[in-house]
Order: sequence, then structure tokens, then C-alpha cells
Amino acid sequence: MRMYDLIEKKKRGMALSKEELVWLVKGLDGSIPDYQTAAFLMAVYFQGMEDAELADFTLAMAHSGEMADLSGIAGFKADKHSTGGVGDKTTLIAAPIAAACHVKVAKMSGRGLGFTGGTVDKLESIEGYRTELEKEEFFSVVNQCGMSLIGQSGNLAPADKKLYALRDVTATVDSIPLIAASIMSKKLASGSDGIVLDVKMGSGAFMKTERDAVCLAEKMIAIGNRAGKKMAALITNMDEPLGYCVGNVLEVKEAVRVLKGEGPADVRELSVELAAQMTALSGKSIEESRESAEKALRDGSAYRCFLDMVKRQGGDIKLLEDTERFPEAQYQFEFCADRSGYLSRMDTQKIGIVSALLGAGRTAKESSIDPLAGIVFDKKTGDAVKLGERIAVLHSSSCYGFEEAERLLREAVVIEKQKPEKKPLICRIIRL
Amino acid sequence: MRMYDLIEKKKRGMALSKEELVWLVKGLDGSIPDYQTAAFLMAVYFQGMEDAELADFTLAMAHSGEMADLSGIAGFKADKHSTGGVGDKTTLIAAPIAAACHVKVAKMSGRGLGFTGGTVDKLESIEGYRTELEKEEFFSVVNQCGMSLIGQSGNLAPADKKLYALRDVTATVDSIPLIAASIMSKKLASGSDGIVLDVKMGSGAFMKTERDAVCLAEKMIAIGNRAGKKMAALITNMDEPLGYCVGNVLEVKEAVRVLKGEGPADVRELSVELAAQMTALSGKSIEESRESAEKALRDGSAYRCFLDMVKRQGGDIKLLEDTERFPEAQYQFEFCADRSGYLSRMDTQKIGIVSALLGAGRTAKESSIDPLAGIVFDKKTGDAVKLGERIAVLHSSSCYGFEEAERLLREAVVIEKQKPEKKPLICRIIRL
Repeated sequence: MRMYDLIEKKKRGMALSKEELVWLVKGLDGSIPDYQTAAFLMAVYFQGMEDAELADFTLAMAHSGEMADLSGIAGFKADKHSTGGVGDKTTLIAAPIAAACHVKVAKMSGRGLGFTGGTVDKLESIEGYRTELEKEEFFSVVNQCGMSLIGQSGNLAPADKKLYALRDVTATVDSIPLIAASIMSKKLASGSDGIVLDVKMGSGAFMKTERDAVCLAEKMIAIGNRAGKKMAALITNMDEPLGYCVGNVLEVKEAVRVLKGEGPADVRELSVELAAQMTALSGKSIEESRESAEKALRDGSAYRCFLDMVKRQGGDIKLLEDTERFPEAQYQFEFCADRSGYLSRMDTQKIGIVSALLGAGRTAKESSIDPLAGIVFDKKTGDAVKLGERIAVLHSSSCYGFEEAERLLREAVVIEKQKPEKKPLICRIIRL
Repeated sequence: MRMYDLIEKKKRGMALSKEELVWLVKGLDGSIPDYQTAAFLMAVYFQGMEDAELADFTLAMAHSGEMADLSGIAGFKADKHSTGGVGDKTTLIAAPIAAACHVKVAKMSGRGLGFTGGTVDKLESIEGYRTELEKEEFFSVVNQCGMSLIGQSGNLAPADKKLYALRDVTATVDSIPLIAASIMSKKLASGSDGIVLDVKMGSGAFMKTERDAVCLAEKMIAIGNRAGKKMAALITNMDEPLGYCVGNVLEVKEAVRVLKGEGPADVRELSVELAAQMTALSGKSIEESRESAEKALRDGSAYRCFLDMVKRQGGDIKLLEDTERFPEAQYQFEFCADRSGYLSRMDTQKIGIVSALLGAGRTAKESSIDPLAGIVFDKKTGDAVKLGERIAVLHSSSCYGFEEAERLLREAVVIEKQKPEKKPLICRIIRL
């Protein structure tokens, strides 16, 4: 087989065979030169991939590394994946709800990059919490408390790492089939029986339009189904941060408040729906699953699952029992309205950048983060504000950067005379 | 400037600025990684280039190496370029005709590669002929006999060499703007005032359809005009080899016969038209130019120009005065009709491959060639043939390979009951 011929075939819009795709993914170990892979990726950008072809490609990528075997965990294993948002702490809530509904959640999460946060960073802001467990301990935690949240193993879909690094420098990141293959290769390698996708759309998401978000969701569902997984997807709005808090410790505190029956309505709504979809994949009706999820939150069983897991993984649960014990950033800066009106629009990606600038995010994979940094909003879009009224407090362990952060946030937060129409948080549910 | 942004811009279908293209071509010296260049080339394949953009790109490529300064040659300098055919020996005829019509032809030619021949290989089959001249001698030959045919200098448009090598392994050779830029970068660097393009179409050409051939011609003309060159193009048929002979010595002999007023009509027709177009670019009317070209062939002045040049460049003119003196291949094999009918179609590319197989061509840039190898046809398409009648003689200095050559030639030469309709050799003339 010659890579030249595979590039030519894709360039002409033809589908590659399974054999060809397996050969190509194997060749990513270094035997295929990067310039040929780069040309192939650009051809995929323009010509796309058919569903069967994309599934073959994704499975080959999944099999390039270790395939997690979760058979040591009893029961139905459900995973969730968010395409990346700002202020999205739903994993910390939906996973324990699903666990309390008797679905097993053995979840490997990633770190944040760029303007989006990552579950592993959030968990590590709980003192003592271990995100690296050996397989035996991971299984034992899941079997005992119904869930475990850990970091991704280094050998998860290495072909995806290679491809992503190349896409990142050849302007081929924004290809829907390549995004779908990248996400799903890791999900398939993670070994769960069912996967619920939260595909974000809007100003704080990679997918700016509903059309693209639905297209990505459908591609991922098609891949998952062909690989024998139960699949569902939510298309959700990222035109403002989820909840009021952005930043690692700040988000953990907000998530714990939701688990205790408090906290913002939008975070609660999305977390319950995600958990309900995860539960439904195990075979229950969606109505019954929604009821169970609500109940697990109401009766504290979800919160207890989370506490139990954190304790078993070495985390300081006193922090969760009294979230006021969490440390606070040394420097705090009030961001106030420069006019009266309604908070009409938020450039959520820019808000993610402000949060990263304050120290909550990474600009490169190797950067370290400030767990205490972030933003706590007092307002959400649609809220009335008066001139001089506080809209948010910026948190950072460094006294530098507030000026730039304020300037950017001023651009990101738009106040207008007219009260805006608010879009629903969950735009669409796709179940197949 | 970042290559990433240029790839992204082209991917989105936008035109790159002159500044960006100059930067990109400069970066081909190694500072831009090949995988980024490869992604860019594939994006160009899909998005094309606007005329002004393509001209800027081509000029930047031309300026990546030495720009020939022909001001030491008096008068109007005309060049011709063929996109590559089988049996195309017109440079050997059109150049002396144009020179006899008082146009200066200071031409740097290439070698053959794959199934197409190259003028330099043909000239080197004349014993003693030097294709490498220093600038002073080159100019002096042109000033004295109106023409000189030499090989391309090593430093002609090195950016094109780099890009071509990458296109060759990333399936981006067949992009019309990239082909146009590649050809024209070398032509612009070669320094002539006017350029006549012979864009081949059909089974023995890179452009399989008239539409593609016209598109390529128009792109090249647009580039040339923007660079201040007088331009014309012929779109010519390559559905059969030009003339009866394919192979280096064999083609030189046929060319000399045409210069002496003999030889096949198609070679003569195309050579005269090319020379007339070259002459017309200098400012004469095309009718007057055609008359002068015909006359230069008829009265022997073109032949004398050629003899004069060959002599000055060290070639043995006795061979030209009596072409029977040229050496002949040791092994010859008669290829005969396997049925009666009309020679209805020829797969000309396959014929080029047969010729290369016999030793006349190169499969890699560094291969050596057998100057005596090739094919002499007795028939052209439209001719009647009888079962067992000779269609061609295959020539080679090796006794191996005739079997494979015969098998391929049998596939390439189609005999049918019906007399075929013959397409005109010159399909279209484009002058701007």
C-alpha cells in the first residue's frame, strides 16, 4: 500500500477501505512522513468521510493504544463527553447522579487547554485527590461507590495524539469528521457501554452554529453505534458560561452546591438531563430515568456517591462538607457595569480567555495552572444591571493581569437597553 | 507571519497577498516545515488561486533563483514551452524557423521524465553537441545564428523544484494553478520577452480534456501578461504521437527531415504555427508571420540556422547532413497488426511508457537513457491496416523488454472496422 494512493483517493472524494485506514493509522508511528499525513488531513477537510469509513478510521485510532477492558466492573458502564465549554462542571454532578441511579461511571477525563476547562484540573483542586489510579483501584472504587473520575492514561489512542498535533499546525482542526474521530477514538478506547455526548454550540464553543453541532453529534453517534455503543447526544447552548463560576476551585464549589440541592438552575438542569440520558442508555425509559435523577439529587444519594469517591481517592472531604474551607485567591477585583441596562450578550470564548489569563487555564500543554483563579459572576444574560453595579469578581493568585482581564471582559460582556430573548440551554436531544 | 494563518486563509478560499506569498516562497528554503507546505498545497488544489495571486506566487518562485538577464542579446527574444507530449520534436524545428524569421531564441530546455521526452536528451543524441554553455557563449551563439538550445541551469526557480518534489508525493501534481505556476516560474526566470505555449490535451497529455487544457493555458497567459510578457498559446491534440518517431535519435532524424522540407505533415504544421506565433509576438501580424515561417522552411534558411547552431555547439553536422549516418539500435522488433481494419485509437501515454521501457525514457530523475531506443510507426490513426501488416518497429540497445513492450503496445494501438473521425491537430489558438 502507498500513502500517495490513499491521499489521491481521498482527494477524489472516495471512501477509504477499512484495510487502508488500518494501514494508515499504523503508519502514524513514523513510517508515513508527516507531509503526506498533512496532505491527507487537508483532503479530508474538503472531502469529508462517509459514516462507515469514519467508524473504521476511529476504531483503528482507538486500537492504536490500550483498549480499556471494563469487564471487571459489574453492570452497565456509561460515559459522558462534553466538546468543551466555559464553566462546565457537569461531570462532577452528572456522574454521581448516574452512579446513584445504579449506572457505573468509570470515567477518564482530560485537562483543560486554551479557553476550556478540564475535569482533571478541577478535581485536583480538591486537596489530596488522586487522579492517577492503578486499574485495580479504579475498578474497586467504581464497584464500591458506583463511580470514579480519573485522568486519561498516557497510552489512550496515541494515533489521535499524533494526528491532533499535526492538525494543530496545519489548520485542519476544524474538520467535523476529524473532530468526531478524535473524540470518539478516546471514548471507544475508554471501554464504556454507553456514551452521552454534550455538544456545545455558540460563542463559547468550537461549534458556532446549531447546524455544525448537530452534524458533529450525528457523526459521533454513527461512529459509536457502528462500534456497538449505546449513544445519545445533547446539543446545548454555550452563549454564556454555565452557572456563575469559571475556574477550578470555584467550579468545584459550585458543583458541590448543586449536589447539595443548591446552586444555579442551568447547571442543575443540564447535569440532571445528562445523568438521565446516561441512565436511559442502560435500558430504562427516559421518563423514569429523569425521575430517578431528580430523586438522587433531592435525597442526597448523588452527593453521598461523590463524597464517597473523593474520600476513597484521597481527597479532603471536609472541603466539600463546608465549601467555605476551600482556599480563596489572594487577589480579587470587582468588575462593575459601565452603564445601566440588561446583560444582553456574552462572548463566552473571550470569558474563557480572561479566566485563563487570570491563571485558571493553560496556553500550552505543559503550563501549570492556578487552581484558585477564575471569575465569579453575579449576573447572567437577561439580568438587569445598574451603572456601577457589580457584575463579577475576578480571582487570581497574581496581582498582574487584572487590567488586561478587565479590558477583555468589558468587550465580552455587552449591556443593552433592551431585555434580550434567552435561548433554551438544551436545544436538542438526539437519541438513536 | 505564521504559515498556519496562510494555510487557514487559503483553506477558506481567500487570496493570499503578495507579501504573504513572497514570505511563503522564501520559507521553502527549510524554515517552513514540509507538513505545513503539504497542507497548503492540498488547500490550493481545492480552492485554486486568483489570477493576481497566482502571478505573485509565480514571480516569487521565479525570483527564488537566478533570473536570466538576456539584455546582452539584441532583438526580441521568444521562448516556447510544451506541456509535454510523446514524439514532440517541434522545438528542434520551430526554434530555427523563428530564428530565420529574425526572432531570437535563447532557450533553456529540460530533460524527459516519465512518458514524455525532453529536448535536452534529444540534442545530446547528436554526437559532440554541448547543452551546457557559459552565459557568454550562449549569448554569442544566439547573437550569431539567432538561436541556441541549452539545458536549464541548476539554479532556475529552486522553489519550484522544492514544491514539485513535495507535490509529487502528496498527490497535488494535478492542480491547474500549481502546474501553471511551476511552468511559468521557470519561463519567467528564463528571461525571454515573449512565450508561446503548446498545451497538449488528450490521451498522451497531462490534460485529458480540452476544458482543462484551455484553463491551464489561460492561467499561464494571465501570469505571463502580469509579468509583462507577450503571450500566446496553442491547444493541440495528443491523441496520437506527433509524427512517426518516438525516441531521441529517431526524433532528431525526423526533425531534420522536416527542416529539409520532408517529414510528416503534422510535425511540420505544428512547428510552423509555433514559429509563426513566436514571430508574431515580436509585433508582426500573424498572417505575415505565417508566411515568413513557411518561407524559412521552404528556402532552407531555418535548416541553415539549425546547422549553424549545432556546429557552434560542437555537434557533428555530418549526421544532420546525412541522417543515415546516425547510429541505429542493435535490436529491432517488428510490431504487426493482429487484425485488419483501421488504426482507430492510440493510447499515447502508454506509447510513451513503451518507449521509456525500451530505454528512451527515465523512470527516475537520475536514470540514464538509451539515445537509440524508441518506436518508428508506419501508420497513424485513420490509416487502413491489414492483418500481419507492420505498424511499427521497436528499437532498443537491449534485447530484453520487447515482450512487455509488445504486450503494452498491443493494448495502446486499437484497430477497428470503422474508419475513425480524426480531430484537428491544432484545436485552438489563444492570443491575448
